Amino acid sequence: MSVAAPGIEAAMRLAIEHSYRVKGSTYPNPPVGAVILDTGGEVVGVGGTAPTGGDHAEVMALRRAGRLAEGGVAVITLEPCNHHGKTPPCVDALLHAGVTTVVYAVADPNEVAAGGAARLAEAGVDVQPGVLADEVAAGPLREWLHKQRTGLPHVTWKYAGSVDGRSAAADGSSQWISSEAARLDVHRRRAAADAIVVGTGTVLADDPALTARLPDGSLAAKQPLRVVVGKREIHSEARVLNDDSRTMVIRTHDPMEVLQALGGCTDVLLEGGPTLAGAFLRAGVVDRILAYVAPMLLGGPVTVVDDVGVPTIAKALRWQFDGVDRMGPDLVLSLVPHRA
Amino acid sequence: MSVAAPGIEAAMRLAIEHSYRVKGSTYPNPPVGAVILDTGGEVVGVGGTAPTGGDHAEVMALRRAGRLAEGGVAVITLEPCNHHGKTPPCVDALLHAGVTTVVYAVADPNEVAAGGAARLAEAGVDVQPGVLADEVAAGPLREWLHKQRTGLPHVTWKYAGSVDGRSAAADGSSQWISSEAARLDVHRRRAAADAIVVGTGTVLADDPALTARLPDGSLAAKQPLRVVVGKREIHSEARVLNDDSRTMVIRTHDPMEVLQALGGCTDVLLEGGPTLAGAFLRAGVVDRILAYVAPMLLGGPVTVVDDVGVPTIAKALRWQFDGVDRMGPDLVLSLVPHRA
Ligand SMILES: NC(=O)c1ccc[n+]([C@@H]2O[C@H](COP(=O)([O-])OP(=O)(O)OC[C@H]3O[C@@H](n4cnc5c(N)ncnc54)[C@H](OP(=O)(O)O)[C@@H]3O)[C@@H](O)[C@H]2O)c1
Ligand SMILES: NC(=O)c1ccc[n+]([C@@H]2O[C@H](COP(=O)([O-])OP(=O)(O)OC[C@H]3O[C@@H](n4cnc5c(N)ncnc54)[C@H](OP(=O)(O)O)[C@@H]3O)[C@@H](O)[C@H]2O)c1
Repeated sequence: MSVAAPGIEAAMRLAIEHSYRVKGSTYPNPPVGAVILDTGGEVVGVGGTAPTGGDHAEVMALRRAGRLAEGGVAVITLEPCNHHGKTPPCVDALLHAGVTTVVYAVADPNEVAAGGAARLAEAGVDVQPGVLADEVAAGPLREWLHKQRTGLPHVTWKYAGSVDGRSAAADGSSQWISSEAARLDVHRRRAAADAIVVGTGTVLADDPALTARLPDGSLAAKQPLRVVVGKREIHSEARVLNDDSRTMVIRTHDPMEVLQALGGCTDVLLEGGPTLAGAFLRAGVVDRILAYVAPMLLGGPVTVVDDVGVPTIAKALRWQFDGVDRMGPDLVLSLVPHRA
Repeated sequence: MSVAAPGIEAAMRLAIEHSYRVKGSTYPNPPVGAVILDTGGEVVGVGGTAPTGGDHAEVMALRRAGRLAEGGVAVITLEPCNHHGKTPPCVDALLHAGVTTVVYAVADPNEVAAGGAARLAEAGVDVQPGVLADEVAAGPLREWLHKQRTGLPHVTWKYAGSVDGRSAAADGSSQWISSEAARLDVHRRRAAADAIVVGTGTVLADDPALTARLPDGSLAAKQPLRVVVGKREIHSEARVLNDDSRTMVIRTHDPMEVLQALGGCTDVLLEGGPTLAGAFLRAGVVDRILAYVAPMLLGGPVTVVDDVGVPTIAKALRWQFDGVDRMGPDLVLSLVPHRA
C-alpha cells in the first residue's frame, strides 16, 4: 500500500512525541517512538521504548495495533533492530505482524543492532529511510547518538542568567532569577537526565538538593545521579547527600575524568556554576547549551561563566541557536556547536 | 457605510507599515500612517507623514485617493489633529474629502492638537478610536508618545553581545561580534534615530564613525546627530568628528544633563559602551533595550554592562521581552521596562 507523504510525516511527528515521553527512562536502550498505520492510513497503534530492558517501541506499538497492523505501515524514529538482546529482533516482530512498509527516521549506528533495514527489504517489505531524520537526530535521539558515536555521555550545560549574562547579583543572591515556569521546565529536564553535575562551589554556596520534582513539589519517580566535582570536603549534612537520590563525589578538576566516571550515563546535565562550566567549555565537552534568560539586568561580578579560554575574538567559541522559546516571562535559548 | 472589522484591522496594519517607512524623517511631527478605503472597502490611498513641516499622513493619503475618498473610511495610526500648525487641521481635510468614517489607533495626547475626534463626531462622522492602539503605542509612535508624556527623548540602549553577556573578548577585540545581517539592521535603526550617544571610552577604543549607512556602504540620506559624552579630550582626527554628520561633545557624567542637551530629539540610540550604559541604567533613563545576541561565548572581563546599581537580587532591574527575533545567525531581543 502507499500512504501520502503528509500522512507519513504526521505519523512520524506522533512517533517523535511518544519518544519524548519515554526519554530518560529507557537506559541503555534509545528512547524511540513508533506508530502503526492500517491499510487505510489510520493510526492503530503507538508506542515508546519500555523502561530499561523492556520491549522496543515497535513491539509496543504492534501489540496495540494487533491484527490491524497486517498490510499496514510502521513509522519508527530509529531503524528497527536486527539482533537478539534482552528482547528478540524487532525486524522479526514487524515481519510477523505483516506490515508491508517500514518508514524510519535515523539509521542505527550501532553495528550489532544494525542491518534491520536490509533484512526487511530482503523479505519484500518496502523500506523508506530518512523521514524527518534531521529532526529526530537533533531531538529525541541526540544524546543517544552522541554516546554511540563518541563513547562519552552527551553534556548539556544548563544555566539561568539575566539578559546581561549574570547568574547572581553582586552579593551572590540568585533566588530566583528565573520564573516559576522556567523552574518547572528545569525539573522536567532533570527527570529526563541520567546525571546532574555541579562543582563544590555551588554546593557550598547554595546547598541545593539537585533532585527532580513534580509540579506539586513531590519527587519525580526517576531521579538522576547527583555528581559533585571538586577537591573540597562537602558537609555530611549537605542536601545533595540526602536520601532522595544517589550521589557521586569526584575529587578532580579534569572534566574528562568526570565524563569517564559517568561512562554509564547518556544524558548529563551540567548545572554550573561559572567555574565548572568554564572548565567543561575549555575542555570542549559541552554538547548543548540550555540558557534560561530572565528579563532583568544585574550587572556586577557574578557572570554565568568566567574563563572559557578565549583570548581574542577570532578564537570565540562559536555555537548556533537551535531553539528559541518563551517560557513565561523568560526565554529559553538552546544552542549546539557551530558546524562550519 | 460599514466595513467589516478584519478589513479595518488589515487597513490599520497597512497604515502602521507606512508609518514605519517615515519614522525618523518627520521631526517634530509624529511618524503617522494613513489608509483611505472607498465605499466598497478597497484601498484607494495610503500615506505617511511628509518630512519636517510637510503634510500630515491623512492629507497625503487623501490626496492619493482623490474623489474616491468620498463616502469612504480613513484609517489612521493617530487621532487627526485639530489645529493650525505649519499645515491646516487634518480634520478639515477629512471633512472636505467627505469620508463618513474615521478609524484611529491612538488618541493625540498633545493638548494643542487634540480634539480632532470630537470635532469629527460633531460633524456627523462615525469615529472609531482605539483600533490596534496597543500595537501602535508600543511600535511606531512609542518614542513620540514618550516625548509627549515626559518631555524627554526616548532612549534605546542598543548593544551587541555574546550569549554570555560579553561585548568584547579579553583583549578588547570585538570586530565582529554580530553578523552582517545584524549590522545592516543597526544601520537601518540608526537612520531612524535622531541621535546616537557613546562615551569617550568607545571613541578612544574603537574610533567609530557612528554614521548610518546603506547596504552598499554609502551614507544614508538622513544622518543622526552624533553625541560623545565624557570629560576626556577626543582627538580632532577622530572619525566621529568627520563631515558625514554633526557631532555634539557633552563634557559631563550626568545622563540627565545629556538628555536635556538633546531636548530637540525624540528617538535617541545609546550605543554604549558598558560604562555609559550603566550610568544611563542607574539613572533610570533607558526606555528600551535592543540586544543583538551572537551565538558565541567569550568569557573574560568585558561585559555588556558593568554596574547597574543592583546590590542584591531583590533590587534587580526588571524588564520584559517585547520582541524576540532571529536575524541571520543572531538573535535580536527587545525589552521594555516591566509593568508591575
Ligand atoms: N544561575 C545558575 O544557573 C547557577 C548554577 C549553579 C551555580 N550558580 C551560582 O554559582 C556560584 C558558585 O560558583 P562556583 O563557580 O564556585 O561554582 P562551581 O563551578 O559549581 O564550583 C566551583 C568548584 O568546582 C571545582 N572545580 C572542578 N573542576 C574545576 C576546574 N577545572 N577548575 C577549577 N575548579 C574546578 C573547584 O572546587 P574545589 O576548590 O573544591 O576543588 C571549584 O571551586 C553560586 O553563587 C551559585 O549560586 C548559578
Ligand atoms: N558591543 C557593543 O555593543 C559595544 C558598544 C560600544 C562600545 N563597546 C566597547 O566598549 C569598550 C569601551 O567601554 P567604555 O565603558 O570605556 O565606553 P563608554 O561607556 O562609551 O565610555 C566610557 C566613558 O564615558 C564617560 N562617562 C560618561 N558618563 C559617565 C558616568 N556617569 N560614569 C563614568 N563615566 C562616564 C567617561 O569618560 P571620561 O573619562 O572622558 O569622562 C568614561 O570613561 C570598547 O572596547 C568598545 O569596543 C561595545
